[in-house]
Amino acid sequence: MPSQEIKKDNQGTVDNPHDLVVVGAGPAALSAAIYTSREDIKTVLFEKGAIGGLAAVTDWVDNYPGFAKGISGLELSDAMQSQAERFGAKIELGEVQSVSSADKLKKIMTTEGDIYARAVLVATGSEYRKIGVPGEEEFYARGVHYCATCDGAFYRDKRLVVVGGGNSAVQESMFLTRFTSHINVLVRGPKFRASEILVHEIEKFKNKITVHFNTTTDEIVGQDSKVQKVVGTDKISGEKVEFPTDGVFVFVGLDPNTGFLAGSGVELDENKFVKSDQKLMTNIPGIFVAGDVRSGATLQIASASGEGATAALMIREYLESMERDHEPRPVHV
Amino acid sequence: MPSQEIKKDNQGTVDNPHDLVVVGAGPAALSAAIYTSREDIKTVLFEKGAIGGLAAVTDWVDNYPGFAKGISGLELSDAMQSQAERFGAKIELGEVQSVSSADKLKKIMTTEGDIYARAVLVATGSEYRKIGVPGEEEFYARGVHYCATCDGAFYRDKRLVVVGGGNSAVQESMFLTRFTSHINVLVRGPKFRASEILVHEIEKFKNKITVHFNTTTDEIVGQDSKVQKVVGTDKISGEKVEFPTDGVFVFVGLDPNTGFLAGSGVELDENKFVKSDQKLMTNIPGIFVAGDVRSGATLQIASASGEGATAALMIREYLESMERDHEPRPVHV
Repeated sequence: MPSQEIKKDNQGTVDNPHDLVVVGAGPAALSAAIYTSREDIKTVLFEKGAIGGLAAVTDWVDNYPGFAKGISGLELSDAMQSQAERFGAKIELGEVQSVSSADKLKKIMTTEGDIYARAVLVATGSEYRKIGVPGEEEFYARGVHYCATCDGAFYRDKRLVVVGGGNSAVQESMFLTRFTSHINVLVRGPKFRASEILVHEIEKFKNKITVHFNTTTDEIVGQDSKVQKVVGTDKISGEKVEFPTDGVFVFVGLDPNTGFLAGSGVELDENKFVKSDQKLMTNIPGIFVAGDVRSGATLQIASASGEGATAALMIREYLESMERDHEPRPVHV
Repeated sequence: MPSQEIKKDNQGTVDNPHDLVVVGAGPAALSAAIYTSREDIKTVLFEKGAIGGLAAVTDWVDNYPGFAKGISGLELSDAMQSQAERFGAKIELGEVQSVSSADKLKKIMTTEGDIYARAVLVATGSEYRKIGVPGEEEFYARGVHYCATCDGAFYRDKRLVVVGGGNSAVQESMFLTRFTSHINVLVRGPKFRASEILVHEIEKFKNKITVHFNTTTDEIVGQDSKVQKVVGTDKISGEKVEFPTDGVFVFVGLDPNTGFLAGSGVELDENKFVKSDQKLMTNIPGIFVAGDVRSGATLQIASASGEGATAALMIREYLESMERDHEPRPVHV
């Protein structure tokens, strides 16, 4: 087939829509694209930031199944990208601004223009909320972390500082005691904003966890890519306080990238993650979701990849049913 | 810690139970074990057959995300095994015969004796039903296949034979027309045992699919690891018939490995796959499920691995809630 023809096929116009537009290009998105492209489902991904998403900026991924000794996040996402492109997936750099239904198609408004597709996969991921202090960016993923399941095991018998006072800060601090020798938890307010049961529970970890209320986190200090201490302020006395440490975990929230779905009719949960059925379809037929942006996501690369693959199969089923019926219809669970 | 102490820890007795017993050692099982072991959840896997499950006997895995050029199934499952063992997972060879609740624990009867655990993950996979003819085993995964999504793309512009007359035979034949130049479908009976809508649908693929009813499949013939033809019998005329082909896809059923769950109280679906909630827990608190044995599974290595990772996080949450309450309780969705 001449490549000219493929190009024409890929216009994404009303008359010649893409089969699938994937919003995002992280592990869930790339895995879905590996599957769909391999099966000749014309797939275009839109990424506004870095290809590979959070995985690409993860220093070392120890628990993605299949790499016995672990792999760097960048290497892993590069491999996924090459794999998707090998099968014909096309990755566009640009931001998706909205998604809406247009007759039997989906209309996707992007910074690069409007395009049309038969189905959409939302795989935009989530972003860990930052505290915005000096050192946070410098030591990102090299001493400053946001996911205990991912990086906790790197701190066996080491000291940690945890920043945050909500449910996840309390829960993840207790979890981190599996590895760490001691944790200083820095809470800006006078008490935890966590559930009673968790606040009660963390009491039992006194031997490993020291909680500092009314304490701001002002700076993360280190040298040669190694974190050495966290500098804060005791808001009561107004004095500077220092916490020597080997690493910092920040748990101050997680924001799903779902702003562009406002007005799409896609149902979100109370934290603005995308709700889905067992087949990973949203409440809008033809719009699917996978990975960290999905309500109930585990925020693990393995889970996101798996969901991407699963979503691809469900999307194929949906597209086949569309062809059969000559009109879109929901895939039944 | 002296290794003597770890050994004692690993006895799996009533007084000293394992945290988790995983039944099976395929991708879902190994992925779960990578996660749980890394978090010091004492994990023992039981495998009655080959470590790696169906993945280990898959010639080439083209679509497992992270291997740009694909990887052999054996290499992939070996890597997963090393990775799980690196974190301390223990793999026992032996067959699990039954699982039951015993006070707050699960009792697992195996050919190697009875053991106890706080939680169980069922990851025993499924087995494609074979037709049991000469050549089927010889060319397994090298010309004889059971999964169109996995291996269909290897047959671009090649000829295929499909064996089977049920829903999956019809559906997958239509799917395979994306790749193949022509398919001969061999149906033993006088008509399809598939849903009306599918039988009607396959009509439209006449230019690529030829259906042969009343035709048995007697032998798969090839040379030098390459399939050349399928030999069958026309049951009406009694004559031998031959179908030159590059590959054979067999779709005659799928059996989940759930026999050992009889009497466990674990709820199965109508095809004997294990039912689960959104947190991958079965109806029995503390018994989880992941991978190809789960009701709704996609039978993809990526999906199975992803589910294994997700299950591991849910199991951790369950074990933590058990410790908190000092009694098992369901994890709420």
